[in-house]
Amino acid sequence: MALKYLTQKIAQTIDEELMSQAGGFSIDQLMELAGFSVAQAIFRTYDKSKFSRVLICCGPGNNGGDGLVAARHLFHFGYRPNIFYPRRPPKELYQRLVAQCENLKIPFTDNLSDQFSRNDLILDAIFGFSFSGEVKAPFDQIIQDLRETKLPIASVDIPSAWDVEKGNVDGRGFIPSMLVSLTAPKLGVKQFDGIHFLGELEKKYGLNIPPYPGTDQVIDITNLTKEKL
Amino acid sequence: MALKYLTQKIAQTIDEELMSQAGGFSIDQLMELAGFSVAQAIFRTYDKSKFSRVLICCGPGNNGGDGLVAARHLFHFGYRPNIFYPRRPPKELYQRLVAQCENLKIPFTDNLSDQFSRNDLILDAIFGFSFSGEVKAPFDQIIQDLRETKLPIASVDIPSAWDVEKGNVDGRGFIPSMLVSLTAPKLGVKQFDGIHFLGELEKKYGLNIPPYPGTDQVIDITNLTKEKL
Repeated sequence: MALKYLTQKIAQTIDEELMSQAGGFSIDQLMELAGFSVAQAIFRTYDKSKFSRVLICCGPGNNGGDGLVAARHLFHFGYRPNIFYPRRPPKELYQRLVAQCENLKIPFTDNLSDQFSRNDLILDAIFGFSFSGEVKAPFDQIIQDLRETKLPIASVDIPSAWDVEKGNVDGRGFIPSMLVSLTAPKLGVKQFDGIHFLGELEKKYGLNIPPYPGTDQVIDITNLTKEKL
Repeated sequence: MALKYLTQKIAQTIDEELMSQAGGFSIDQLMELAGFSVAQAIFRTYDKSKFSRVLICCGPGNNGGDGLVAARHLFHFGYRPNIFYPRRPPKELYQRLVAQCENLKIPFTDNLSDQFSRNDLILDAIFGFSFSGEVKAPFDQIIQDLRETKLPIASVDIPSAWDVEKGNVDGRGFIPSMLVSLTAPKLGVKQFDGIHFLGELEKKYGLNIPPYPGTDQVIDITNLTKEKL
């Protein structure tokens, strides 16, 4: 059974259904599960004794919110997160997630370029499955900086600036070391051959997802995706 | 460093602070983390090959909501939960948590007495740290039934019908095999000497809680509490 890859439209429809009255999920709940699974995938991949300092780059939407939740869980797992969150829409949910991090004294930084020498790993939580079109300022420069850094990058759901269906068109994005696909991988990452986890999964969409081990909220699908290629 | 036990008043104050504007948590988030940690503690204690059928008894408040979240995670961990939820206040959050379980085809039952021979384990999510006074119908009979069953019982936060500070006054409650204290144990469970986990923890209240292992959301404090006695 091959893994299913989602079009942008199907990914959006699943998201809407989960949060419909019939699905019953709130955005708070889904974001908590998503961010937790991202943090768990990082824990499994990047030993905290070597990769303790994690720079979390958050975008303006829900992908950025997932990053804020992941920051809090990484802190509790023993990492030392730093958060770069240059555009903060006045949405109550995001403000609350920021407050939760601030209460733990997780540092927020305004200057990305200073951070590369001060971190061991980057979590890319800039754009998710609803991204399309052009990357606008200030994110164009941020993507450029991430393309140039030598630090390993872990991406949430889709590498930022990749087309959700066509992938890294014209090489405009960077290639992360690890990807945590949420719900199911998107078409655009079919060619991605790094470490690949799947998280935040509801098992009702016939996505051919293998059972989760134990109580984990993520599963390593690196080999499954490699078989497919 | 001895574990701290909370008075009812302090437990309520911590809960209010977490959900205040300063704390930043939503009830959805906290309930998701609480229910997940309860499910994880059950997974660690009760082998799913022997205790696959879990009857989840949900009360009318947030303890019952924790039980509904735990039911969903137990299902994903490979258990076969059954839910008994006799009083359902028309609160949107609870209705959504019910819908999430119904979408997974987790059975709801109206008849408790039929269930004892059809389950291997009971999750007591009836009353939590805000319980006080007398147990009213139909829960008086339910507590009586739980006192008589031979099935092992795991309790969420405090064994239902125990006084939050004075414990099992006049033996009116039952004695669970396992307890999952949330945030920190309450004064009333100081004498509880069964299996004891701690879950849903925010580490800012100086509660002398040992670090969590790995990415777990629970920690086994059975021996810590025994040392204390």
